Amino acid sequence: MKALRNVGRLLSPGSPLRQNVDVLVDGDLVAGVVPAGQGGPVEEDFDCAGCLLTPGLIDAHTHPLYARPRLAEAAQRAAGASYSALAAAGGGINATVRDTRAASFSDLELGARGRLQRWLGQGTTTVEAKTGYWLARDGELAAVALLSRLANDRSLPRLAVTYLAAHEVPPEHLTARADYVQKVVDWCPDARRAGASFCDVFCDEGAFTVAESERILAAAAAAGLRLRLHADELGLTGGARLAARLSAVSADHLLRIGPAEVDALAGAGTVATLCPVTALNMGQLPPARALLDAGVTVALGSDHNPGTSGTTSMSLVLYLAITELGLSVEEALAAATVGAARSLAVTDRGRVEPGMLADLVLWQADHEGAFAWEPGLRARRVWRGGAELAPEG
Amino acid sequence: MKALRNVGRLLSPGSPLRQNVDVLVDGDLVAGVVPAGQGGPVEEDFDCAGCLLTPGLIDAHTHPLYARPRLAEAAQRAAGASYSALAAAGGGINATVRDTRAASFSDLELGARGRLQRWLGQGTTTVEAKTGYWLARDGELAAVALLSRLANDRSLPRLAVTYLAAHEVPPEHLTARADYVQKVVDWCPDARRAGASFCDVFCDEGAFTVAESERILAAAAAAGLRLRLHADELGLTGGARLAARLSAVSADHLLRIGPAEVDALAGAGTVATLCPVTALNMGQLPPARALLDAGVTVALGSDHNPGTSGTTSMSLVLYLAITELGLSVEEALAAATVGAARSLAVTDRGRVEPGMLADLVLWQADHEGAFAWEPGLRARRVWRGGAELAPEG
Repeated sequence: MKALRNVGRLLSPGSPLRQNVDVLVDGDLVAGVVPAGQGGPVEEDFDCAGCLLTPGLIDAHTHPLYARPRLAEAAQRAAGASYSALAAAGGGINATVRDTRAASFSDLELGARGRLQRWLGQGTTTVEAKTGYWLARDGELAAVALLSRLANDRSLPRLAVTYLAAHEVPPEHLTARADYVQKVVDWCPDARRAGASFCDVFCDEGAFTVAESERILAAAAAAGLRLRLHADELGLTGGARLAARLSAVSADHLLRIGPAEVDALAGAGTVATLCPVTALNMGQLPPARALLDAGVTVALGSDHNPGTSGTTSMSLVLYLAITELGLSVEEALAAATVGAARSLAVTDRGRVEPGMLADLVLWQADHEGAFAWEPGLRARRVWRGGAELAPEG
Repeated sequence: MKALRNVGRLLSPGSPLRQNVDVLVDGDLVAGVVPAGQGGPVEEDFDCAGCLLTPGLIDAHTHPLYARPRLAEAAQRAAGASYSALAAAGGGINATVRDTRAASFSDLELGARGRLQRWLGQGTTTVEAKTGYWLARDGELAAVALLSRLANDRSLPRLAVTYLAAHEVPPEHLTARADYVQKVVDWCPDARRAGASFCDVFCDEGAFTVAESERILAAAAAAGLRLRLHADELGLTGGARLAARLSAVSADHLLRIGPAEVDALAGAGTVATLCPVTALNMGQLPPARALLDAGVTVALGSDHNPGTSGTTSMSLVLYLAITELGLSVEEALAAATVGAARSLAVTDRGRVEPGMLADLVLWQADHEGAFAWEPGLRARRVWRGGAELAPEG
């Protein structure tokens, strides 16, 4: 048994704020929360010095496995080039596919490990991680297998692995889209066996149609994968409605949806995973308040990817959810913990209560308002399953 | 003589991009830029490993000297409370004034040093620093003196000290505003003697009127202080036009200005200092592109302050200037270097050229597009006047 002593404020979604408490940890689980000093003797103590403790943050949308960021393209976008123009000129996702196919898996693992360590050091203890930069059978399945292996590494965040072969139609199939869709369908059982828990499709203008997405997702569900969807980010093409119709666990981005889509998600119990960094990049905000008001569970994601989002800081994502999307601190924290957990179909994390995983973050602040004051609030100490890790940056 | 070897890309405003170069440093100045390996022998070498080098960033608007952040208030704002309602309930600037007046100067110095070290470690080698949390003679002048002393500490960024006794009318003068304005006028020569270079006034709705601001700024100019102005942030009350009329070096925020104010600033040669973090908080953007198109020099500032902006990362401010205000990477970098230098009336920094101060930042990236990809790009190494400092988070 160990104790995190002298927690100034313990903010855990669904519970009233607790002040001046000790959090008891037994193995990898939270054992209890008691008034400071009332916990009895333990084998190990950590003094939280009156700081703010929260559940470990959960990032519900990332693309962490790639060769290198497309920095020249980011500069061109900043100078006014559109994503579609850059993609037409050989950039975009397909540029990363070229780079990533050409890289060795040992180099790719090294890069992903470095990024995932930063996630953890910045207070994120679970990361949803998608494939999608091979768009070919062997690479996509090897990526699923690599991410599944990293998921067991206790120096990294916990991972939820998503098969995203339907990220883009690869260049070699552009004249035979249906063939590629059939391949993605055929690989679903293999992806499940390789360790994926989820299947995602980029259903949008210039990507996959609703009909194509439905074919893939039906096969994924039959193979035992839970469903996620990149939905209505670039245009209102019907992704959110499809997600609701198929009872997907998550519909992501949702920059273009209106009241009908909000209602559909609410009715289906599909989580709305919002990505404020991407929204800022696109200059288009998702209807976050309308979703909350309709009773939709909101999750947050960094959308870390080599093209448009380099962040691994969920506290920065919280800050943007507050300042840009209009969430309160409590709503943003809930979205980045229990909301994200729900989008990953797990109930063992996201709150600090007895029996939950002891995934915990002590922040460099004594009040949760710091999430709204300091963009990218720094973690002071991070625990993953009760194991203490030094923070990073 | 020392050499920064193997700079992959050297981006310095006003010069074409230079690739694969060595930067030579003699004492605290840049001595030259030569093709990699062509610099001859030097006493000291640093291998830049192909990374991006830029001038040290310059933060043109900060409030770094205060007792503690108003975190509970930040949470209330996030939950929908307005700044004016919070101020009326005893919060806002006056809450910080109460806390700061009650704090010891040794504690205040400790807090400011910690923050300023973070600025430097994150790549900012010059910081404009305002007083304004005493609103009484002794405190304001002691604050000027403390900041002036810290300006000589080589472990901190260079500081440009701004006297801002006209930050707010203090509670004890609310029924006698004219008396307080007269006091601020009277203290101007003392502030100059204590080491201030600039005088600033918060000219806005709920703060100082244009007439009050003009009285103060006229006295400040007579005392040898250069003029800055918080202008047209909350309402279009005439601050930008006043700044132009008085040939202020800088008009700051400018969230509410229109084409006439843009033209006035352009005509006067007054720098427009934009603060994207504050703009995000206010949900109102300054007309950045119109200012640039009109030929106005743009500077960037973090607006770090205990109420609404906790950042010390100018690379995050650059990121927001790009994604939120529509600047290109080159425009944003220029605003955070030569533009900010111009707002501080200094010509010895902001570019990497022979004879300029060797204030330099090596970034964790090999391409300047990283500023647009990673919010808060990390510094890999920082030099202030040629002295190498370890980076921080």
